[in-house]
Amino acid sequence: MEEREISKAVVKRLPRYYRYLGNLLEEKVERISSSELSRLMNVTASQIRQDLNNFGGFGQQGYGYNVKHLYKEIGKILGLDKTYSMVIIGAGNLGQALANYVRFEKRGFRIIGIFDVNPRLSGVSVRRIPIMMIDELGEFLGNNKIDIAALTLPASGAEEVAPILTDHGIKAIWNFAHTDLHLPEDIVVENVHLSESLMQLSYKLNHMI
Amino acid sequence: MEEREISKAVVKRLPRYYRYLGNLLEEKVERISSSELSRLMNVTASQIRQDLNNFGGFGQQGYGYNVKHLYKEIGKILGLDKTYSMVIIGAGNLGQALANYVRFEKRGFRIIGIFDVNPRLSGVSVRRIPIMMIDELGEFLGNNKIDIAALTLPASGAEEVAPILTDHGIKAIWNFAHTDLHLPEDIVVENVHLSESLMQLSYKLNHMI
Repeated sequence: MEEREISKAVVKRLPRYYRYLGNLLEEKVERISSSELSRLMNVTASQIRQDLNNFGGFGQQGYGYNVKHLYKEIGKILGLDKTYSMVIIGAGNLGQALANYVRFEKRGFRIIGIFDVNPRLSGVSVRRIPIMMIDELGEFLGNNKIDIAALTLPASGAEEVAPILTDHGIKAIWNFAHTDLHLPEDIVVENVHLSESLMQLSYKLNHMI
Repeated sequence: MEEREISKAVVKRLPRYYRYLGNLLEEKVERISSSELSRLMNVTASQIRQDLNNFGGFGQQGYGYNVKHLYKEIGKILGLDKTYSMVIIGAGNLGQALANYVRFEKRGFRIIGIFDVNPRLSGVSVRRIPIMMIDELGEFLGNNKIDIAALTLPASGAEEVAPILTDHGIKAIWNFAHTDLHLPEDIVVENVHLSESLMQLSYKLNHMI
């Protein structure tokens, strides 16, 4: 498939399409029209057609989308046709919550190590994934090809550990720490700032939007 | 202060301003120019001036912003000058992680109850916050005024519990469940879909943007 330039806004919506299509697949739905998908997702049918037209000719007039095909193609665009190895830095509740999400594994994100500074956690495992000490991180990264690091530790720790990660060739950081990391330009980052999300909610609550 | 219509995009950026201004306050910085803030936050100075002009006249030419004042005013807009009572539904790792964030408490979000279906968690506490059983939720909500519910349970459970919450007057839902809840129009929602965030990261990794 030839890939056109896809706008950032569309990319942000793709995982949601992927989720709905995955649910439809589970329900053994083979085809769906843009208007049915529109009702389901609470998005206008024209928005759906516009978004999905980005990938060229999935839908056919009066015939609808082939759910399986569309699911697969969106998965490819999102990079879900590959597998990734991942480490989690910070074995607190949030790190352990991520380690326990079997869903990630199913999507191809294999968590192969968790790191922490707390010596009491040394040797403990979460879902058979060993917790190691942060001072072993460099060596571990030297011996294992890791694609993604999730940072679930306090801001100061995240700033300290980031150079170790990038020095060892990690190209993608999923950052839950309450800071904007300073990283080389060729490193991609996705931030999840929970406090900021909660502030958005309190804004909405006060302005009822 | 008279409040103008603030665009959604600006609102999304406010928590980040709030975070930087909070850090500056801790470092006892009293004033900051848009160009200094620009360097710090890696945003253009004109963007900063435009964003902050929304609130009218905080900055003075050649004088900069009063950090404390700006921090306070942005806090007010975000609704952080009030306190909120909150429950967490789902006492798994993620729910416990949220319950353990002391930061939320400091911002005025008081977590007063955690609910789960697992009887083994009954009577257990997280940071002195009691874990109760979901069948006690209705009664608890009848006896306590709760503003916000965080949903950290599987999608099917979230769909089931949502009507109980809204029937008891909860107006804001912080949804971590992997579903789009069907809610009355006067309920505000903020979604945190972790799988979708991870897919954004794998998209970026594959397209290096």
